[in-house]
Amino acid sequence: MTSTRALATPSPSAPFGATTIERRALRDDDILIDIAYAGICHSDIHQAREEWGTASFPMVPGHEIAGTVAEVGAAVTRHAVGDRVGIGCLVDSCGECEQCKNGEEQFCERGAVGTYNSRGYDGEETMGGYSRQVVVSERFALRIPEGIGLDEAAPLLCAGITTWTPLRRWGAGPGRSVAVVGLGGLGHMAVKLAAAMGADVTVLSRSSAKQDDATQLGATDYLATGDDGVLESAKGRFDLVVNTVSASLPINDYLATLKPMGVLANVGIPGEAWTVSPGSLVGGSKVLAGSNIGGIPATQEMLDFCGQHGIGASVEVISADQVDQAYDRVVEGDVRYRFVIDVATIPAE
Amino acid sequence: MTSTRALATPSPSAPFGATTIERRALRDDDILIDIAYAGICHSDIHQAREEWGTASFPMVPGHEIAGTVAEVGAAVTRHAVGDRVGIGCLVDSCGECEQCKNGEEQFCERGAVGTYNSRGYDGEETMGGYSRQVVVSERFALRIPEGIGLDEAAPLLCAGITTWTPLRRWGAGPGRSVAVVGLGGLGHMAVKLAAAMGADVTVLSRSSAKQDDATQLGATDYLATGDDGVLESAKGRFDLVVNTVSASLPINDYLATLKPMGVLANVGIPGEAWTVSPGSLVGGSKVLAGSNIGGIPATQEMLDFCGQHGIGASVEVISADQVDQAYDRVVEGDVRYRFVIDVATIPAE
Repeated sequence: MTSTRALATPSPSAPFGATTIERRALRDDDILIDIAYAGICHSDIHQAREEWGTASFPMVPGHEIAGTVAEVGAAVTRHAVGDRVGIGCLVDSCGECEQCKNGEEQFCERGAVGTYNSRGYDGEETMGGYSRQVVVSERFALRIPEGIGLDEAAPLLCAGITTWTPLRRWGAGPGRSVAVVGLGGLGHMAVKLAAAMGADVTVLSRSSAKQDDATQLGATDYLATGDDGVLESAKGRFDLVVNTVSASLPINDYLATLKPMGVLANVGIPGEAWTVSPGSLVGGSKVLAGSNIGGIPATQEMLDFCGQHGIGASVEVISADQVDQAYDRVVEGDVRYRFVIDVATIPAE
Repeated sequence: MTSTRALATPSPSAPFGATTIERRALRDDDILIDIAYAGICHSDIHQAREEWGTASFPMVPGHEIAGTVAEVGAAVTRHAVGDRVGIGCLVDSCGECEQCKNGEEQFCERGAVGTYNSRGYDGEETMGGYSRQVVVSERFALRIPEGIGLDEAAPLLCAGITTWTPLRRWGAGPGRSVAVVGLGGLGHMAVKLAAAMGADVTVLSRSSAKQDDATQLGATDYLATGDDGVLESAKGRFDLVVNTVSASLPINDYLATLKPMGVLANVGIPGEAWTVSPGSLVGGSKVLAGSNIGGIPATQEMLDFCGQHGIGASVEVISADQVDQAYDRVVEGDVRYRFVIDVATIPAE
């Protein structure tokens, strides 16, 4: 067992505090990682505040983890001490079902094990990346290419793969017109990735406040959808719309911005149902799709792509004592574009 | 000009009667077709009864047309006198826009011209296949392979291509589990085509009445979805569900029958909106798709495939005086599985 310092919240309404947690003794296929940074994903907040149903406390969130390998188990072959590695949303899966064999571990038929607020196949509660060290099977540790700082790499493990998957599945690339709805933690990654894939990228955001940022991230056009008639003006324009907004949107109006055979891919889960007019889909052979992170092979492919294209997340590094405030700022949309915690600032005992 | 006999309805509530209509003089790229059979599509009924908004009367419906070439224009190269040919839902498109260039003429940016109840680029009302002869640009006439009777070929031009498109787009084939919802004119074609593609086909129908038919058409399994718990038992089972039913369905329950990354493709347009729970799509990266006929190249590909696999529609040939009764029977679902009119029975003047 390895004792390590972590930031935990004891209950949905309590602030974070430093504590000591135990990481399991290395199994043959495990590695011990010295974490450098952990990103703050909006889903951390939903879980820490118990907005997604009953959660497990004390909770150490964090599934955007970047660090270096400190120790390896006896049978580890993929990673060596000193390697730069990351962990995303998953830390285990059965490895034997159709989904696992296809590299879609997030859909494991036995049920994949989440990085925190989940229970491992050994029955132990999982604890996430707001921590100085973590132990994980080498199968779920990804190589972080040189040239990406560990701070800007951390959010790639969730925000990166979440937006990568629909862009790849639906063919973002040269000659394709891609819109990104919402310019937050997910949206800013979607813009960077789609632009690097060679697509023509338009940002759809309520106000024009983020127009300059959008350009800098790689968008060639920007539509302030809160202005009268703006969304209507984009009718039939996009091959792919990636919707990163979890608030309810007028879904038929967004379907109308697609070309025939276009795809509206959603990575967020609004609380309300979508009321989809059948004609909005059938008339133009259009597609309303959902997308849920991505498997381990795709995550590595995304990281390698980011390495080749010099892409990291745009981050604001914070210290351990700023996490509660950062949560409030994420909820208010006041972050450009991802907070990452420098876990070295978690106080020693 | 060519005078020809046709079945027309003078108004939404009137029965069909024989009449004489004029077909245009052959343009250089036109062919004159002696029609043998015209299928009755449910959309004929919707339009003849003005259930889809204002229609144009007198109306000669029919966009499932099979016959032989009787005469060709000066510049025709694709078809020769005596060739077996068909016409589907389209008789013209601009030929120059992105969609036309991609062979997706149904999405022509200028607006494709429908085979009937539409207006040609010359301003003339179009008249469909319930008729002895028709003139059409050779671009919109498809070759009907030897080995398929013209009667069973006619419905391929709409029911065939309508179901072919989602099966091809979404990868029906060996090792893929495909469900077909509804066993009518469209559904029975979906079963035949999916089975010939090598997919494992399950029919989902309300009662067990069509179980034997389903087996004969090529399905390997059958679920009577009107029975308690049957739909729930199919959770996570299909790669692709092709929904041919235009009535409202509990869409989230059907999405639940998909495997992760599965596709629910709809070819019908129910009158009511679909209420889609975002989690039903996003959790498993699932897809809700629409599909609207198919372009000319795909229609030819489908016909050639049908020729290779000996596939035609299952038809009931009727005479001209049975059309009104056939309409009522289609509305009641009392046809196995497509009526085709023997247009030789349209009375002479």
